[in-house]
Amino acid sequence: GFAKIDNHRELRVGYPEVVYGEGKTSEQVTEIATYMQAKGQNVLITRSNDHMYETVVKACPKARYNPLGRTISIVNKAYQETSSKISIIAAGTSDLPVVEEAYETAKIFGNKVEKIIDVGVAGIHRLFNQMDRIREAKVLIVVAGMEGALASVVGGLVDKPIIAVPTSVGYGANLGGVVTLLGMLNSCASGVSVVNIDNGFGAAYNASMINRL
Amino acid sequence: GFAKIDNHRELRVGYPEVVYGEGKTSEQVTEIATYMQAKGQNVLITRSNDHMYETVVKACPKARYNPLGRTISIVNKAYQETSSKISIIAAGTSDLPVVEEAYETAKIFGNKVEKIIDVGVAGIHRLFNQMDRIREAKVLIVVAGMEGALASVVGGLVDKPIIAVPTSVGYGANLGGVVTLLGMLNSCASGVSVVNIDNGFGAAYNASMINRL
Amino acid sequence: GFAKIDNHRELRVGYPEVVYGEGKTSEQVTEIATYMQAKGQNVLITRSNDHMYETVVKACPKARYNPLGRTISIVNKAYQETSSKISIIAAGTSDLPVVEEAYETAKIFGNKVEKIIDVGVAGIHRLFNQMDRIREAKVLIVVAGMEGALASVVGGLVDKPIIAVPTSVGYGANLGGVVTLLGMLNSCASGVSVVNIDNGFGAAYNASMINRL
Amino acid sequence: GFAKIDNHRELRVGYPEVVYGEGKTSEQVTEIATYMQAKGQNVLITRSNDHMYETVVKACPKARYNPLGRTISIVNKAYQETSSKISIIAAGTSDLPVVEEAYETAKIFGNKVEKIIDVGVAGIHRLFNQMDRIREAKVLIVVAGMEGALASVVGGLVDKPIIAVPTSVGYGANLGGVVTLLGMLNSCASGVSVVNIDNGFGAAYNASMINRL
Amino acid sequence: GFAKIDNHRELRVGYPEVVYGEGKTSEQVTEIATYMQAKGQNVLITRSNDHMYETVVKACPKARYNPLGRTISIVNKAYQETSSKISIIAAGTSDLPVVEEAYETAKIFGNKVEKIIDVGVAGIHRLFNQMDRIREAKVLIVVAGMEGALASVVGGLVDKPIIAVPTSVGYGANLGGVVTLLGMLNSCASGVSVVNIDNGFGAAYNASMINRL
Amino acid sequence: GFAKIDNHRELRVGYPEVVYGEGKTSEQVTEIATYMQAKGQNVLITRSNDHMYETVVKACPKARYNPLGRTISIVNKAYQETSSKISIIAAGTSDLPVVEEAYETAKIFGNKVEKIIDVGVAGIHRLFNQMDRIREAKVLIVVAGMEGALASVVGGLVDKPIIAVPTSVGYGANLGGVVTLLGMLNSCASGVSVVNIDNGFGAAYNASMINRL
Amino acid sequence: GFAKIDNHRELRVGYPEVVYGEGKTSEQVTEIATYMQAKGQNVLITRSNDHMYETVVKACPKARYNPLGRTISIVNKAYQETSSKISIIAAGTSDLPVVEEAYETAKIFGNKVEKIIDVGVAGIHRLFNQMDRIREAKVLIVVAGMEGALASVVGGLVDKPIIAVPTSVGYGANLGGVVTLLGMLNSCASGVSVVNIDNGFGAAYNASMINRL
Amino acid sequence: GFAKIDNHRELRVGYPEVVYGEGKTSEQVTEIATYMQAKGQNVLITRSNDHMYETVVKACPKARYNPLGRTISIVNKAYQETSSKISIIAAGTSDLPVVEEAYETAKIFGNKVEKIIDVGVAGIHRLFNQMDRIREAKVLIVVAGMEGALASVVGGLVDKPIIAVPTSVGYGANLGGVVTLLGMLNSCASGVSVVNIDNGFGAAYNASMINRL
Ligand SMILES: Nc1ncnc2c1ncn2[C@@H]1O[C@H](COP(=O)(O)O)[C@@H](O)[C@H]1O
Ligand SMILES: Nc1ncnc2c1ncn2[C@@H]1O[C@H](COP(=O)(O)O)[C@@H](O)[C@H]1O
Ligand SMILES: Nc1ncnc2c1ncn2[C@@H]1O[C@H](COP(=O)(O)O)[C@@H](O)[C@H]1O
Ligand SMILES: Nc1ncnc2c1ncn2[C@@H]1O[C@H](COP(=O)(O)O)[C@@H](O)[C@H]1O
Ligand SMILES: [Mg+2]
Ligand SMILES: [Mg+2]
Ligand SMILES: [Mg+2]
Ligand SMILES: [Mg+2]
Ligand SMILES: [Mg+2]
Ligand SMILES: [Mg+2]
Ligand SMILES: [Mg+2]
Ligand SMILES: [Mg+2]
Repeated sequence: GFAKIDNHRELRVGYPEVVYGEGKTSEQVTEIATYMQAKGQNVLITRSNDHMYETVVKACPKARYNPLGRTISIVNKAYQETSSKISIIAAGTSDLPVVEEAYETAKIFGNKVEKIIDVGVAGIHRLFNQMDRIREAKVLIVVAGMEGALASVVGGLVDKPIIAVPTSVGYGANLGGVVTLLGMLNSCASGVSVVNIDNGFGAAYNASMINRL
Repeated sequence: GFAKIDNHRELRVGYPEVVYGEGKTSEQVTEIATYMQAKGQNVLITRSNDHMYETVVKACPKARYNPLGRTISIVNKAYQETSSKISIIAAGTSDLPVVEEAYETAKIFGNKVEKIIDVGVAGIHRLFNQMDRIREAKVLIVVAGMEGALASVVGGLVDKPIIAVPTSVGYGANLGGVVTLLGMLNSCASGVSVVNIDNGFGAAYNASMINRL
Repeated sequence: GFAKIDNHRELRVGYPEVVYGEGKTSEQVTEIATYMQAKGQNVLITRSNDHMYETVVKACPKARYNPLGRTISIVNKAYQETSSKISIIAAGTSDLPVVEEAYETAKIFGNKVEKIIDVGVAGIHRLFNQMDRIREAKVLIVVAGMEGALASVVGGLVDKPIIAVPTSVGYGANLGGVVTLLGMLNSCASGVSVVNIDNGFGAAYNASMINRL
Repeated sequence: GFAKIDNHRELRVGYPEVVYGEGKTSEQVTEIATYMQAKGQNVLITRSNDHMYETVVKACPKARYNPLGRTISIVNKAYQETSSKISIIAAGTSDLPVVEEAYETAKIFGNKVEKIIDVGVAGIHRLFNQMDRIREAKVLIVVAGMEGALASVVGGLVDKPIIAVPTSVGYGANLGGVVTLLGMLNSCASGVSVVNIDNGFGAAYNASMINRL
Repeated sequence: GFAKIDNHRELRVGYPEVVYGEGKTSEQVTEIATYMQAKGQNVLITRSNDHMYETVVKACPKARYNPLGRTISIVNKAYQETSSKISIIAAGTSDLPVVEEAYETAKIFGNKVEKIIDVGVAGIHRLFNQMDRIREAKVLIVVAGMEGALASVVGGLVDKPIIAVPTSVGYGANLGGVVTLLGMLNSCASGVSVVNIDNGFGAAYNASMINRL
Repeated sequence: GFAKIDNHRELRVGYPEVVYGEGKTSEQVTEIATYMQAKGQNVLITRSNDHMYETVVKACPKARYNPLGRTISIVNKAYQETSSKISIIAAGTSDLPVVEEAYETAKIFGNKVEKIIDVGVAGIHRLFNQMDRIREAKVLIVVAGMEGALASVVGGLVDKPIIAVPTSVGYGANLGGVVTLLGMLNSCASGVSVVNIDNGFGAAYNASMINRL
Repeated sequence: GFAKIDNHRELRVGYPEVVYGEGKTSEQVTEIATYMQAKGQNVLITRSNDHMYETVVKACPKARYNPLGRTISIVNKAYQETSSKISIIAAGTSDLPVVEEAYETAKIFGNKVEKIIDVGVAGIHRLFNQMDRIREAKVLIVVAGMEGALASVVGGLVDKPIIAVPTSVGYGANLGGVVTLLGMLNSCASGVSVVNIDNGFGAAYNASMINRL
Repeated sequence: GFAKIDNHRELRVGYPEVVYGEGKTSEQVTEIATYMQAKGQNVLITRSNDHMYETVVKACPKARYNPLGRTISIVNKAYQETSSKISIIAAGTSDLPVVEEAYETAKIFGNKVEKIIDVGVAGIHRLFNQMDRIREAKVLIVVAGMEGALASVVGGLVDKPIIAVPTSVGYGANLGGVVTLLGMLNSCASGVSVVNIDNGFGAAYNASMINRL
């Protein structure tokens, strides 16, 4: 019967509430955050900004802002961290905003999570120096711009599910990340699946579901 | 040291050998299959065809052909099936070749796997009738052509990792599956990651890594 | 003879005058509005802005502004509302500007019109809760961004003409709404036709012609 | 409750069964047709071919083949023709297959329907000679390739809902109909909505829903 | 010998000097204009702006500015106007900047030139009212945005060379004029050739070469 | 009145009838040709083939076939050749089919016409050796594939209207001529307008209208 | 003077004649080959086929055919091999046709040349095993399909000029090599320049010019 | 062993450090520059700006700014200039920023380098006047926008490796340089390889590697 089609939000009891800040006013976001705080729920706001944070923090003093990742996290109730680990691997410094969005998302969903950055293939020894740490993770997020080669290289070295996030970092015929996106989908390595351009949140949401299995 | 960069194949001890049949002669494929058979290894050949099967089966009598999925499976050593399940969900009959490729891949990688087909959103009650079975799976593969809406709908109903496979099924401005691919990447539901067009193998490879965690 | 090729405007006697505000000065628009007011005609200005409204309202005190939909409506003569209904169904809050443009257009063309919003497929039970209201309409406008799955889902549930409006809402590889547009054109459900990206006016114009049949 | 989400097919009691022939075997299609015949239902098979017809007609002697439109129609029970009319207007001879698919679809859905062909804008007097007939229709289907200008010209002359069907007719930078499709979506005339390239069936399905209102 | 490859500029003795203002400073442009004035030559500056005009006019008091067309014309020596005529035909008001660029170019190259505007195909009787004037021209420039249907309609009515200029006017899936451009190249009417998007100068340069034959 | 909108064909009294052979049967084409022959009119059939010629020539013994250009010309009445000349300039041997289509079109429209081939810019001295002949023409057709540079180079050397025809000749990322087409539209030389890919007929039709002025 | 613009062919005295076989008849190619043989010149024919070879070899018994690379080489006069080396590095077996075209080109232009194949990044240890050989080369050609990551990885490991050749190898959203092409142009490693898709000849021609410096 | 995979930076001992300024703060860049200065190394900062220069020069008084090329060069240790020469050839004034980036890069990598500008093919005699200088170079960089014809013309006249840089200069359907990029990749002349749009640095880096061979 219809009971099968229950509320998505209900399904996710215990999950933080996620608010996509883009295109919402600081006031609208604050209202949602306050409401959730009253219910004792954790809140993650993505694509926020300085002004939004300043408005939210007045109503929710526990709010913490990650300006690079543009996230606001409000931990109203403690959660148990997973024992298994998500690794977020990134090519260059310009990929950091996406790394941070993924990091904060994974964190508030209760995951142990680690960042391994600046290991792009233009200097591949940097990646190899980190292989032991990388191999300890249960699931990997690979964030890269340009031609996205890092996803293939990592995919060829480890045997874990990899969620690749193309970034809009690049110039010339990068087409706002579309080239990276298509490159990752054409990866010569098995085990790579892809989310949308700059979608650090989506990658971490996926990784979290896998990490908690 | 360099020991970290060991052979990809070695990493995958116990895995079947996978041969991409497209662009290879029946003789080349048979040679690889024979060699692996001698080593007692399981073999999966994708993108094969009738002629290839007839050539392979002479040398490897255990070879089994799935003409719809265009796969040849050769089980030379028994494997333990997982207790957790992969569900492959598909919209329409024209998606079946991709479903079968995914199914055979998941099977030979040792997974319990189930097919739930013809549940496209044009008649959404068909999907709801299957929700109990779908919710039992540990990871889902959603195969769809056209606008790819099925991935979003499933993503909104279950809280499992979903690997979406766009198919090149469609006509008019479908652009050989590119529209479906981009639609799935823009899914309004969280928890969906995407592999390349018609890449049933890749989806099942990913799902298998997750299912075995 | 030539009489067949009569004036489009004449054909539409009784219709409001529609002015596309984009790229026109507030003064130009006010001049047209004043002229139409003198003739006792109703006027709809789309793609307007605050400044344009302030200029127009000085000359036409009946002017009413919808800032979200960016429309100015001036009802100089009463019209008879239709007994049959247009339903405007929308996925998310970011689709609201397009919903409002469609709503105001349908209104001033004399239609009974209803908005059913925030029923995107990521939480499909919200849509099902509205099915009775939706089924009462004579024609449906479905407004959605992302992958546009809502049009297919609605198309599979009701047997009414559906005009789908893709919105430019999205991020990553959404390509400014082109992905949504192509997704809707590839809908697996019959009965869906499509207008241009963000073209709420065009959808409502079409729906009005159908609703008045 | 769930009763709202009843079977799409049930919704359409009295409608013909529509089978999309592409990618199905003649035997599969014949099986469906035979089953529907037994239930006394009308059947429309689109994207069929000579061989399919020859197989179907053996089991269903009432089957009638339209080779240009590639449709097979089987009228097992009489239907009442509408008093209002659908006009299908087409630019050139190469658009005829799409015209015929639309025509047969409209017919078996019980509509009065009329074809007005070879009235492309390169010789616009041909269109004007037909304006009286065109104006009598309740809803119009405009089928055109090349730049699709016919939809805009008709849209500027009549005040009826227009469903435009871009065809893949063209050469050079026509991009398989995509240019026509996008041209029609950018039509300068109001009242035009668009279906997918070469989708005569979809246009007629829409028109039928409108014509029967 | 090499004498064949003489200076392009020399070839064009008697022609005005044309300066593309975009990306040049007002000072650079003024320097060129002053130099040409000293040589008694006529000067056309395209893609200029208010500030550029104010700088130029101080040094060249004969400079005349067309703010809509963004051109500065400096007639230092009289020229003989052609007896034959170029007609510039445009669909809508948003095409006017391109019309004006074409007009000023045609003028300073010594052509009799006429503007026929606001005759888009959404109200085609407006075009027919102008057919006598249009038929008097030796060569036609058709400026249009949206789907560019005007070029095809004019091409079907007159037997003169037509240079079509797509404009970047449009919204939604217009893709910055690319849809109009491709539509015009796919025109169903013979006798239409096309220049780049918004390239009023190029169209008038071509038309001038033809008009002076 | 309506008299303005007379028949396109009538406008072109004295012109040959042009039949686009693609997608027509040999029988259909022969019927048209026979009818025109009876009226004493000249006929040009483009995009024909061997079989079509053999069928046509039986009914119209004067028919002459150009297999490279895929044209059939039937001169039923003598015409006066122009004294001014059209030059068709082509880069390489693979452009020859388009050159021949343009040549035959220009011929049967009564133009003096000359072919200057194999003068691509990879060996630019070949072009310079032909400059005297090129400069004698009244209008130029430039046919080129690859990057289409020939149109720009010729445009920089002569002061005549140039109609550029991109050809679908190329490999790799030529995209079926779209790259050449866009390159020509972005030509750095003034005086170049463009027709569709491989459209030798359209270029010659345009050139003929100019040459006859 | 004009002497500067001397014959390209003359410039290249001592070079082999290169004939692009695609779209030429076996007879045309044989004629050129015979003529060059008479002059004692070396000849390279690319994009040839079996039939072409059989025709050529009758007239030129020294002709040697590489069926994988689709080249015919005719060495009529000995040449001095370079002491420095070109390395051609390729990812997979499906890249071999392009490798062979490059190899034969480099050979007949007199270069020492080496092939290092099957070293794609999905198993990166295979590449590292070849680094000593790769580092000995003066210039590198990297041939890869899919996402083209090999070019970036090699570019990050060696300090030599790299000419990357994208291949049309791939499936799904590879877009016939365009994704690989754009990926390589967006390489995160410096020192990589790119030629057209599958253009093994062009890469080797470039490499040869560099190797002979 | 692993020694093969040594540090990229170490490989380049004696090379300047290159910092990509885009997206870095002036402070971050200054820190890197100061650190390198302390080590006595030369530094090149690309994509910088006025503010960045003012910050850097306080810490590194030897810093020299090229505002057009947006580069900052800091020569902390003298280098030996090559005896062979790189020529940078450019079509127009709007290509100058890219020319300057290439020039500064070539300079600080120790190359003799020469600029030959404003020699676009619209006035091809300007190029021929420079052929003697051009022929003296060991390697050429060709910088052009629009259709990129200059690369083909130069490629047909000289027998040196050419690195083509498409610029984003253009208007209308130039697509931000993509048309130029694809045009250059389809060059009819051999010996041309291509780097990304506006990538003057990359071209000069390549040219430098070749020039130093
Ligand atoms: N950065 C992000 N990128 C993509 N989706 C997001 C992001 N942040 C939040 N979301 C999704 O957007 C939903 C919130 O949308 P809203 O109801 O508009 O706040 C959440 O449930 C998430 O599924
Ligand atoms: N020519 C056509 N173009 C698009 N959709 C079609 C066409 N013919 C049939 N359909 C749709 O395809 C469905 C049949 O699909 P199937 O179940 O595969 O036979 C029908 O219910 C129609 O909605
Ligand atoms: N090769 C060609 N390319 C483009 N248009 C052509 C070509 N040949 C003929 N045409 C046009 O097509 C029309 C004939 O179409 P149809 O009535 O189908 O024979 C002619 O009047 C021409 O305007
Ligand atoms: N203008 C440029 N375009 C492309 N790549 C550049 C440019 N300037 C510097 N680079 C590269 O970017 C690297 C510096 O990046 P970063 O480490 O972020 O400073 C250098 O090693 C170069 O390989
Ligand atoms: Mg792996
Ligand atoms: Mg979910
Ligand atoms: Mg429906
Ligand atoms: Mg209308
Ligand atoms: Mg005409
Ligand atoms: Mg010229
Ligand atoms: Mg390197
Ligand atoms: Mg050269």
